[in-house]
Amino acid sequence: MIYFDNAATSFPKPESVYRAVDNTLRNIGASPGRSGHTMTLEAERIVFNVRELIAGLFNISDSSRVIFTNNATSALNLGIKGVLSDGDHVITSTTEHNSVTRPLKSLERKGVEISKVKCPDEGKIDPKDVASQIKGNTKLIVITHASNVIGTVLPLNEIGNIARKNNIIFMVDASQTAGCFPIDVQSMNIDLLVCSGHKSLLGPQGTGVLYVREGIDLKTLCEGGTGSDSEKDTQPRFLPDRYESGTLNTPGIAGLGAAIEYIQDTGIKKIREHEKKLTKLIIEELSKIDGTIIYGTTDIEKRAPIVSFNIEGFDAANIATILSEDFDIMTRVGLHCSPDAHKTIGTFPSGTLRFSFNYFNTEDEIHAGVRAIKEIINSKC
Amino acid sequence: MIYFDNAATSFPKPESVYRAVDNTLRNIGASPGRSGHTMTLEAERIVFNVRELIAGLFNISDSSRVIFTNNATSALNLGIKGVLSDGDHVITSTTEHNSVTRPLKSLERKGVEISKVKCPDEGKIDPKDVASQIKGNTKLIVITHASNVIGTVLPLNEIGNIARKNNIIFMVDASQTAGCFPIDVQSMNIDLLVCSGHKSLLGPQGTGVLYVREGIDLKTLCEGGTGSDSEKDTQPRFLPDRYESGTLNTPGIAGLGAAIEYIQDTGIKKIREHEKKLTKLIIEELSKIDGTIIYGTTDIEKRAPIVSFNIEGFDAANIATILSEDFDIMTRVGLHCSPDAHKTIGTFPSGTLRFSFNYFNTEDEIHAGVRAIKEIINSKC
Repeated sequence: MIYFDNAATSFPKPESVYRAVDNTLRNIGASPGRSGHTMTLEAERIVFNVRELIAGLFNISDSSRVIFTNNATSALNLGIKGVLSDGDHVITSTTEHNSVTRPLKSLERKGVEISKVKCPDEGKIDPKDVASQIKGNTKLIVITHASNVIGTVLPLNEIGNIARKNNIIFMVDASQTAGCFPIDVQSMNIDLLVCSGHKSLLGPQGTGVLYVREGIDLKTLCEGGTGSDSEKDTQPRFLPDRYESGTLNTPGIAGLGAAIEYIQDTGIKKIREHEKKLTKLIIEELSKIDGTIIYGTTDIEKRAPIVSFNIEGFDAANIATILSEDFDIMTRVGLHCSPDAHKTIGTFPSGTLRFSFNYFNTEDEIHAGVRAIKEIINSKC
Repeated sequence: MIYFDNAATSFPKPESVYRAVDNTLRNIGASPGRSGHTMTLEAERIVFNVRELIAGLFNISDSSRVIFTNNATSALNLGIKGVLSDGDHVITSTTEHNSVTRPLKSLERKGVEISKVKCPDEGKIDPKDVASQIKGNTKLIVITHASNVIGTVLPLNEIGNIARKNNIIFMVDASQTAGCFPIDVQSMNIDLLVCSGHKSLLGPQGTGVLYVREGIDLKTLCEGGTGSDSEKDTQPRFLPDRYESGTLNTPGIAGLGAAIEYIQDTGIKKIREHEKKLTKLIIEELSKIDGTIIYGTTDIEKRAPIVSFNIEGFDAANIATILSEDFDIMTRVGLHCSPDAHKTIGTFPSGTLRFSFNYFNTEDEIHAGVRAIKEIINSKC
């Protein structure tokens, strides 16, 4: 089996991730922050350590500003709805996932104004186009670090500078880049950072992260038991408790911690180099096939390990099905929950065939994938 | 080690739960509903089967009305905020967890009116007191099935009848009873049912459930990618997708499925009988200790396997610490995230010492717990 669907969820995970989840479930079953006994203290220690690991990964100075959620979508909803109120203006791009566009759309009905900056050139955004959209009521800029459809990396540094200079909150969706691109919330002026735990971070499903810069006071989206300030019928003011109600997914968080340790031990640079090599190779090989249209930038430095393409005269959905059924190769076809991105590259509504990689993919797998594509095409000729 | 903190999170889980989580992580890593390849179809099958198991457990006729959340708190927030708008009136009890009282408090600030029905007699509620609070704008009755502090079971059937007759939505928090008490959403007239996956249901942390009766249209709390209707910038209308945005915790859900299968194979009746025996035994034994005050009903039939108590002249927190450190017995002391319940029984703000059981606890453990309590008391005399 060859797995090329890492932008949906990474597979496999490091062995240490499986072991951390299993060990936590079997031996440390308690709820962190809920009691005072030795098992709950051990659960608390695990969760604290993973907060520290995440803080270290993104250069966050205070790990209590790291909030655990169940996925990136919850984290995006919490950040976006926590910041924006009626009458506010938000700037976003035309290459966002539905986890950004759908919460924004729901706020638009309540009086929030949205500007979508176009990404005309291979999904790239011109920071000047972001700056030109700023108005007196602009409260938030929310963009993805890299498109989940075409992998194009957006210029965070430049947009972060613009946001900071204009006193606008800067929120980044790093679901496709956390763990395989260096991210520094301080130098990049990121106020709210979101990532999945289970994509490029290599952790288990059921984990997501929201970083909230000190000084930013989000409205809560959920309230409930926090194991703290329990005498009050309102949420605690302090983080992370303010935004973490109910029992956390401690086994999942333990697995995420093991994944981050694996990433740190391996080195993001090494992971990135390997994934760049795979991305470059598949683009080169696919380009040799007549009628192949590869979307997004050809600059490998500015591309996450995601390659979306179509082959003229062939239905991408058919190819994906044959890849799965006859070649045991897992890919993803369609709109990838990002209709705006497909409108941007002109592939709406039919979509594309997407190959996405992680550190465990090999060059041999890339060659096997390309051979399979060629076989499918030839058999239809 | 003796674990008496099952009302916070159950421990241990059935062996099959650990195996289901590990197998899903290792072998079926894909995201359900996100792609079309064989791995994602297998993930979809797992999630669908667990939905069916939950539907079967609670006599839900259509499993697509079963929504997976990350915990009961999220499910309660989704249900409560999905129903209530400015100007609506809600009836609840004075024995609720903060996962109910805190979301309600946040809505009160936005113009929702709250009536809390008192539970004066051992935490019991009189259905007539619920009925007498109903007004023209009463939209929702939300109550717990059993108090997480004293275990007293509330009369769901009677309250459900009152709600149905008055065309009011009836929401039940079954976090302490799902899996160890029979629950039938149809005969009990439950419109919205919430439970944790990791308490009496014996599943992993990171899982929660909300059942939404057909015909009830909740506002969404989060929007995002659903793998469906991806061309639209609004949520799909159909369930479960409407309320399940972002990647699900498939390994956790698989574990929850194994837990429910374990419960079904064992039989709720057998589980309940065992837990009743343990509860009866500890109440009998603790009652023999001078100065012990046991809270809640003495009617074992109307008590979840939860026993809260204090011993006159002794600090409950000290006892809990000694139980953990010297006797390796895990309990929970304090307010248990339910200040209203403690106000009701007169133990606010100091709280109680709580012992809570699951099917894996034994009579020997109960005797060991009681012996430990006696030793602690005697050593302080």
